Amino acid sequence: MTFDALWSQLADVGRARSGGYRRFAWTPVDATLREWFAATARGLGLDVVRDRAGNLWAWWGSPDAEGPGIAVGSHLDSVPDGGAYDGPLGVVSALAAVSALRSRGYRPARPVGVVCFADEEGARFGIACAGSRLLTGALDADRARGLRDEHGTTMAEALAAAGVEPRHVGRDDEALRRVGVFVELHVEQGRGLVQRGAAVGVGSAIWPHGRWRLDLPGRADHAGTTALIDRLDPMLDLARLITGAREAAHRHGALATVGKVRVQPGGVNAVPSHVTAWLDARAPAEAAVRAVLADLGDLPAPVEESWTPRTPFDASLGAEVCALLGGVPVLETGAGHDAGVLATAGVPTSMLFVRNPTGVSHSPHEHADREDCLAGVDALTHVVEHLAGAR
Amino acid sequence: MTFDALWSQLADVGRARSGGYRRFAWTPVDATLREWFAATARGLGLDVVRDRAGNLWAWWGSPDAEGPGIAVGSHLDSVPDGGAYDGPLGVVSALAAVSALRSRGYRPARPVGVVCFADEEGARFGIACAGSRLLTGALDADRARGLRDEHGTTMAEALAAAGVEPRHVGRDDEALRRVGVFVELHVEQGRGLVQRGAAVGVGSAIWPHGRWRLDLPGRADHAGTTALIDRLDPMLDLARLITGAREAAHRHGALATVGKVRVQPGGVNAVPSHVTAWLDARAPAEAAVRAVLADLGDLPAPVEESWTPRTPFDASLGAEVCALLGGVPVLETGAGHDAGVLATAGVPTSMLFVRNPTGVSHSPHEHADREDCLAGVDALTHVVEHLAGAR
Repeated sequence: MTFDALWSQLADVGRARSGGYRRFAWTPVDATLREWFAATARGLGLDVVRDRAGNLWAWWGSPDAEGPGIAVGSHLDSVPDGGAYDGPLGVVSALAAVSALRSRGYRPARPVGVVCFADEEGARFGIACAGSRLLTGALDADRARGLRDEHGTTMAEALAAAGVEPRHVGRDDEALRRVGVFVELHVEQGRGLVQRGAAVGVGSAIWPHGRWRLDLPGRADHAGTTALIDRLDPMLDLARLITGAREAAHRHGALATVGKVRVQPGGVNAVPSHVTAWLDARAPAEAAVRAVLADLGDLPAPVEESWTPRTPFDASLGAEVCALLGGVPVLETGAGHDAGVLATAGVPTSMLFVRNPTGVSHSPHEHADREDCLAGVDALTHVVEHLAGAR
Repeated sequence: MTFDALWSQLADVGRARSGGYRRFAWTPVDATLREWFAATARGLGLDVVRDRAGNLWAWWGSPDAEGPGIAVGSHLDSVPDGGAYDGPLGVVSALAAVSALRSRGYRPARPVGVVCFADEEGARFGIACAGSRLLTGALDADRARGLRDEHGTTMAEALAAAGVEPRHVGRDDEALRRVGVFVELHVEQGRGLVQRGAAVGVGSAIWPHGRWRLDLPGRADHAGTTALIDRLDPMLDLARLITGAREAAHRHGALATVGKVRVQPGGVNAVPSHVTAWLDARAPAEAAVRAVLADLGDLPAPVEESWTPRTPFDASLGAEVCALLGGVPVLETGAGHDAGVLATAGVPTSMLFVRNPTGVSHSPHEHADREDCLAGVDALTHVVEHLAGAR
């Protein structure tokens, strides 16, 4: 199976009117994608197993009998109106790499696995990398089972409806033991490779990142009668937060985003009584993130809702992959990935990035050129061949 | 019935945990309030009739037989978590004035009516002064019947459930003909009377006011990976709108409020693809409102969703009332009222305002001192006695 053939099979699955994709975990669309993965992997002669967290692993060789293998892959779910590449590029490239290696008669010395992680985006239940976090135990199974989607359906109910026994969900040491090395190929979500003029790069670390909530109190008032001087309007603080966070991020070489806001009561003719705003901040170093928060001045103190420290990938593995690929650029990323979860759990892990000409991601406009995707498949094929060794 | 006795009967009806009120049109709480009004008015010897728009009129004397009368009153519904005074103060004061006049043996030369307007706040169906606008024909009956609340219930369904025949709703010339003069007493929604050191004032006009929608386009992007320079983040425009509108309002002696915002997709880790914001702007003169809009600079052009020109109340009636009350202050207001709707329909109309020590309105913290409320009842009693004349 060529990359093109595999890629075209996914083009219409879960596509929205926006041109983007709505592929949410444990939905019928997700089931279609997972069935496609399992059938395609079996067609390549791989053994497909599901771990206790619902992630799908397709093995070439037996990691239980022969010892830990080389796993490659990514995820197939999407954010709302997400692009075609985020996730699927890594899964399709992994399958294409295996297909290329088989068709040229290569026989790996160590087992090779292709993984399709479940629920990476967290679009339905709010927790990113839920599949890999459950696998490693970073996400508590009881907490996960109780998470609810916007319709009130729990993850336990969604898992059961998709044929996954919710009581069995949790850390899966057996599945983890099979993974000697993990390499995730992913479309880049910025323009680092554009700036460096390269089709493929190696990921070295995930930036420290977190999200904070700011409660901005005000006083409900009539918009038509309350003198400006008498108002306690929390929207003015929201404006200060938006511009202040942006300026501070610029100053400290960080990223800061206000993407979610709740205004109460939300009447056109009402001075709001309360505004809640969420701030996402990331930077290469924790100090820069903290500096952005410190620069918000006299706004109410941000309440930390989540924090992930800097996650370095395996340095010697990264150097090995970089050298193997002829010295491609080495990049850090601000986005979380299943690779980061596995790295935190102690699995030697690396990432490959494929150039994104516009840098746009989590959007219908996300794109990668076909030639760059094919370069990514070639790179991943080399990496698997090198790490697994020939028999 | 004294003011205190009447006032205490309403204290618990529709009260929310916030301490404010949730008295929405055509709900069971609204029915309780309307039944209270009708029973209280009948207890004072008044004849209660409902007009085609659902407003309740309680007449002392027969305007059909004796010619148009002097109507006083206001409304009993509220905004979400509104205060106790906005609306009910005018209704209770009107009933207290009639009670005082009856108990002292006064007999009016012209009929005296107390009105309880329906659905003044528009909190449920989105159209303010729906009852008075239907009465005068300013709101089309077909459009009104089709309005939906947040649960999808149409106004026609809500009217029918409350026992009002929706097919009969519409302009009611018969009911309008009965009204020779209308005077609405209302708690002030600012601090004009505080500044002037007076318990009661006369309203001379409602400011021109309108609401506008601004569509602020952006580009969906990943908050963790997209360089600041590569972003098209509509939240920055929202911040410019909030601060720009406030500064422009200050410059031009106007009021401007951004109280409602919709952020899409609204994810914490997503640069928004689109922000929609609503701007409420008012000023003593239309030119000032237009100047605020013009000062928004290079933001996308505001789309006008509603516009109400300056509404003057009857000047000679206002002067007469002012003189009668010993030269109390004369005020304009930025808030819409049923009195404005009747004035626009050609009814000679005036308003009385009662001092609001904090100026807070549309809030659980809305307040008026008891002494000022009693001064309002006295003023309204004088006005009714004077305008109706003694037999």
